Amino acid sequence: MIIVMEENASEPQIRTVTERLIELGFDIHRSTGERYTILGAVGSRPADERDFELMEGVHEVIRVSAPYKLASRAFHPEGTRIKIRDVEIGGDNVVVMAGPCTVESKEQVETVAAEVSKLGVKVLRGGAFKPRTSPYSFQGLGEPGLKLLREAADRNGMLTISEIMESSQIPMFLKYVDILQVGARNMQNFNLLRDLAKLAKPILLKRGPAATIEETLLSAEYLMAGGNHQVIICERGIKTFETYTRNTLDISAIPVIKKLSHLPVVADPSHGTGRRDKVPPMARAAVAAGADGLLIEVHNCPEKALCDGAQSLLPEQFSRLMGQLRMIAPAIERTVD
Amino acid sequence: MIIVMEENASEPQIRTVTERLIELGFDIHRSTGERYTILGAVGSRPADERDFELMEGVHEVIRVSAPYKLASRAFHPEGTRIKIRDVEIGGDNVVVMAGPCTVESKEQVETVAAEVSKLGVKVLRGGAFKPRTSPYSFQGLGEPGLKLLREAADRNGMLTISEIMESSQIPMFLKYVDILQVGARNMQNFNLLRDLAKLAKPILLKRGPAATIEETLLSAEYLMAGGNHQVIICERGIKTFETYTRNTLDISAIPVIKKLSHLPVVADPSHGTGRRDKVPPMARAAVAAGADGLLIEVHNCPEKALCDGAQSLLPEQFSRLMGQLRMIAPAIERTVD
Amino acid sequence: MIIVMEENASEPQIRTVTERLIELGFDIHRSTGERYTILGAVGSRPADERDFELMEGVHEVIRVSAPYKLASRAFHPEGTRIKIRDVEIGGDNVVVMAGPCTVESKEQVETVAAEVSKLGVKVLRGGAFKPRTSPYSFQGLGEPGLKLLREAADRNGMLTISEIMESSQIPMFLKYVDILQVGARNMQNFNLLRDLAKLAKPILLKRGPAATIEETLLSAEYLMAGGNHQVIICERGIKTFETYTRNTLDISAIPVIKKLSHLPVVADPSHGTGRRDKVPPMARAAVAAGADGLLIEVHNCPEKALCDGAQSLLPEQFSRLMGQLRMIAPAIERTVD
Amino acid sequence: MIIVMEENASEPQIRTVTERLIELGFDIHRSTGERYTILGAVGSRPADERDFELMEGVHEVIRVSAPYKLASRAFHPEGTRIKIRDVEIGGDNVVVMAGPCTVESKEQVETVAAEVSKLGVKVLRGGAFKPRTSPYSFQGLGEPGLKLLREAADRNGMLTISEIMESSQIPMFLKYVDILQVGARNMQNFNLLRDLAKLAKPILLKRGPAATIEETLLSAEYLMAGGNHQVIICERGIKTFETYTRNTLDISAIPVIKKLSHLPVVADPSHGTGRRDKVPPMARAAVAAGADGLLIEVHNCPEKALCDGAQSLLPEQFSRLMGQLRMIAPAIERTVD
Repeated sequence: MIIVMEENASEPQIRTVTERLIELGFDIHRSTGERYTILGAVGSRPADERDFELMEGVHEVIRVSAPYKLASRAFHPEGTRIKIRDVEIGGDNVVVMAGPCTVESKEQVETVAAEVSKLGVKVLRGGAFKPRTSPYSFQGLGEPGLKLLREAADRNGMLTISEIMESSQIPMFLKYVDILQVGARNMQNFNLLRDLAKLAKPILLKRGPAATIEETLLSAEYLMAGGNHQVIICERGIKTFETYTRNTLDISAIPVIKKLSHLPVVADPSHGTGRRDKVPPMARAAVAAGADGLLIEVHNCPEKALCDGAQSLLPEQFSRLMGQLRMIAPAIERTVD
Repeated sequence: MIIVMEENASEPQIRTVTERLIELGFDIHRSTGERYTILGAVGSRPADERDFELMEGVHEVIRVSAPYKLASRAFHPEGTRIKIRDVEIGGDNVVVMAGPCTVESKEQVETVAAEVSKLGVKVLRGGAFKPRTSPYSFQGLGEPGLKLLREAADRNGMLTISEIMESSQIPMFLKYVDILQVGARNMQNFNLLRDLAKLAKPILLKRGPAATIEETLLSAEYLMAGGNHQVIICERGIKTFETYTRNTLDISAIPVIKKLSHLPVVADPSHGTGRRDKVPPMARAAVAAGADGLLIEVHNCPEKALCDGAQSLLPEQFSRLMGQLRMIAPAIERTVD
Repeated sequence: MIIVMEENASEPQIRTVTERLIELGFDIHRSTGERYTILGAVGSRPADERDFELMEGVHEVIRVSAPYKLASRAFHPEGTRIKIRDVEIGGDNVVVMAGPCTVESKEQVETVAAEVSKLGVKVLRGGAFKPRTSPYSFQGLGEPGLKLLREAADRNGMLTISEIMESSQIPMFLKYVDILQVGARNMQNFNLLRDLAKLAKPILLKRGPAATIEETLLSAEYLMAGGNHQVIICERGIKTFETYTRNTLDISAIPVIKKLSHLPVVADPSHGTGRRDKVPPMARAAVAAGADGLLIEVHNCPEKALCDGAQSLLPEQFSRLMGQLRMIAPAIERTVD
Repeated sequence: MIIVMEENASEPQIRTVTERLIELGFDIHRSTGERYTILGAVGSRPADERDFELMEGVHEVIRVSAPYKLASRAFHPEGTRIKIRDVEIGGDNVVVMAGPCTVESKEQVETVAAEVSKLGVKVLRGGAFKPRTSPYSFQGLGEPGLKLLREAADRNGMLTISEIMESSQIPMFLKYVDILQVGARNMQNFNLLRDLAKLAKPILLKRGPAATIEETLLSAEYLMAGGNHQVIICERGIKTFETYTRNTLDISAIPVIKKLSHLPVVADPSHGTGRRDKVPPMARAAVAAGADGLLIEVHNCPEKALCDGAQSLLPEQFSRLMGQLRMIAPAIERTVD
């Protein structure tokens, strides 16, 4: 923490601030310039900068170190690779995870799984518990949905990813799901994060619609501080004033997080745009910007989908997209299976 | 739902849309103008407008009715009043709830409770479980904190309000807390909302930092659809591009929600600004704009507070503020005790 | 500027940064702690922090001093009062400026002027050149409109305020207008600001919809650096993700700007909300938060208004509001005429 | 415009609305359903929906047709191609425009022009008049800068693009500049747009930091309605709550605008990110998402640049980027020279 005193701060004011810092266990480096005095406070205990901002004679207080440690690139410079069976997230291959928004029936999930598997996809996505804004919307099949997802994945040699909504669901998810997804609305559900931190399963953590990159990495830190280092960050769009798209997919967050953190970063252009016709351009953009993977909704019959059909690609659209991604990836020395 | 066809939409395109609507159980009113055809679809089943937006020949799809029902002003035109013992929220009196951000010790909470009670406050606030952005910050005293809060409130004849973080805490909260607060980060924790909906206790629901007013009322609808009609909405600031204040307290949300809904609306200027010196002006503004109550942090020794001391008022500042509020309230035919 | 080096920054890296700073004319205070080195750079030449952020071994670069000088509270601690004839903006009295959005006809502006004058208003607002988002909307009466505004004001002993759109209009405005308004969309039209800086007329500068408070004060600085110190800042709403209101009137900007700057601050609840029914609550909120004045649209027949009738108050609504403001102002030791 | 009446709207209320519509010259299609009445109003005169929103018995008012006409895709389905000598913007080739942020000296602009020309760039960018947030920053060389830009371009057979700041500069720009750029801060400087509309020169219009896509297209409409159909839209980042990047480059705006409008769309990743290391990923993303061109800052010695050096690429970085873009473009059936 650095405290910049006002130009005309008095010596007693500087002393009061200094004493408060010492009381909190900080070491202080004082640097007195012609115009103002700067106090550099070094210590390991977290402190609230605002407490000092309000003290007499203080001009500004600046937090120096990033508040996350385990998630920072400095902690693990070479980049984390998460290996699950034959899939590696964070390596040279851009991992495409695809499947229906929601598991609706055995036939639906089997059809989609077979289609996407044929196109090279090794991770099958599908929701069984849906966080719906309205209490009157379809809320998912529950455990039977997870079971259908698992069976469809197994039949095609695929991994599964699905969204978990509360801690009590953990034992159920451990039975069926390879990657546990924390939804955007739960990104700061700290009780859930603390419980997931105890698992030996990879977690895909979605950035909240109003979460800064720093807040997102702090939520990852909750998982890591609790012992789970297999964390994948997912950009899925932020709230902005623009209303044409449901959210604004923040493509720049991909290179930014890759710089600040060693964790793999994937993008979800389906939720990030909310419209099928915008999914391919944004999927291509994400890969071109360096994403380690994608999460894409594919449905064999989107107009009958019980949830978010409007943002699901048809299998043939998805096939064309996969071809484009295979052409783009080499430009940044990556591959798409 | 209203579907506006493109100017040059063909008759077969209009028919396809119409048939899809009928399939979904809608009644259709077709209105053909010189330039375009409008299809008014009336029905009770929810449908995703985007499904139609992507159909051939469709120009625009417009959702007509608000997706919430029980929370809407039309459902209960005269305004809900929530009565708990001698306190009525939503009535002529503007209810000020005050107390420390976090319960830290018996002495602290007793001191603050006595101070604010003396100034007319009848609801004591205080956190025992804190949703902290960083895993390294103080996380609250837990149940012993709730117990201290209850005792301090009882000694002064006050009600209690405190934030609940997950469903498993419900039995514990029922023992100590009169108004259960759902924090901004849990506003769309739908599993928690569904469980709180079964209680016979008032819920104070905080608007999320990226939640629109409509999304906020839909979360209220979760509580009401589940059977709990004692819901208080709380405006506590939204994320904007301005960084000087922690959040931007959206004062206009107060009259807007009062118009759209019959539920009482309170404001939290402490979290909404994050800085002590901005709390009094924003508290005054909220009351002037028609808020039914305020949630204010007061601490007898803010510079030693374990959490958010920077946004807590000193008792003497709070006392001055109460005097100002008593002068402002009559301008809108309200009172402050 | 403060430069925080990375924990493992090498001595040559520190040296390179230091040399670059010296080259740019900065004095450097080096403070070496256990974990990291801090370089405090003091100098008067502006420098781009980002240049240093990208240097090897640099962790973070922090700008210390506010980039505005003349607009800062430190420059003029006691607060600027702008006196125009018998009106003082920034003094004890909250100055209400009212009138139609646009001057439409002699009859209209005369009627409104008489109405608002009777209620104590001493500054008549009215647009003659309108910045309309669409090229197909009514663009204002031009010079004849200014003339009608002036005549109506004179007949009632009032001052005039109107929006200027480009430098070539300056001579015309000097003939008719007492306070020149710079619209939100022109807040960073630096050529216009530079020309207005040469005038001896007060300027009301509207905050742009995407402008931070700092950017707003920097635009004020353009006016002041050019010689015009009679600047009034106007908060009129910022763009946020909330769509119910046209803009989000940032009431907290009022106390924030009052703290950072000595310039008077007024609010425009008409443009800030865009809806007549939200104008009175937000006008009350602005005064309760400490605004030095208000800019309010009043129209004798809003449903026939050529522009923004939906946000104009009827004279009787305005009259009721004035009564409320007179009750609120004393709570903060102000008056409303 | 579609007016949805409230469920319990009375017949006289419906009649009042209808009469007001007729008065304004609209044709009305009334559709009465079981639950509510819908009034479809067809007409060519613009009307303010809010006027009707405030009428008794009205539930909601919906604007149907896009308020822009000439800029809409419907007006010119096949996409506009702007041809200037041997350069075509909006065709199969993705046009990269590059050069220094600001023209600083003959040597600088000549060096950069030669470098980028060698790499295939045919349009040289360079500012001579700079809209700087602070009055104390370098404001550009003025006309001599434009002259140097022209000479450097001519020596390499290139076109020029530069930002114009006010109408009085038009004759000067016509002498030196092939594409006139309207900066983000001037996007709604309607007087400037009206004057540029009279020219036979292509205009590159930058989206403002708080401008919706619709507002951006309305500004394009100003140019087109005035007679200038050679308009290029440029996405350069919007203001959001995320502060790590200067702005958030809204990549999704590219496919959205391409769908809504026939005008070419380019992206400016230099201003959109503000940091050199983020320029290549975002430039790749823009091309992958379908941009018709890029605007990129290149400087031979960025650390000595007088303006925005931090976001300028070194020639070797730019060369590597061009290679990557050439690999990506074929994925979407485009080329990069």
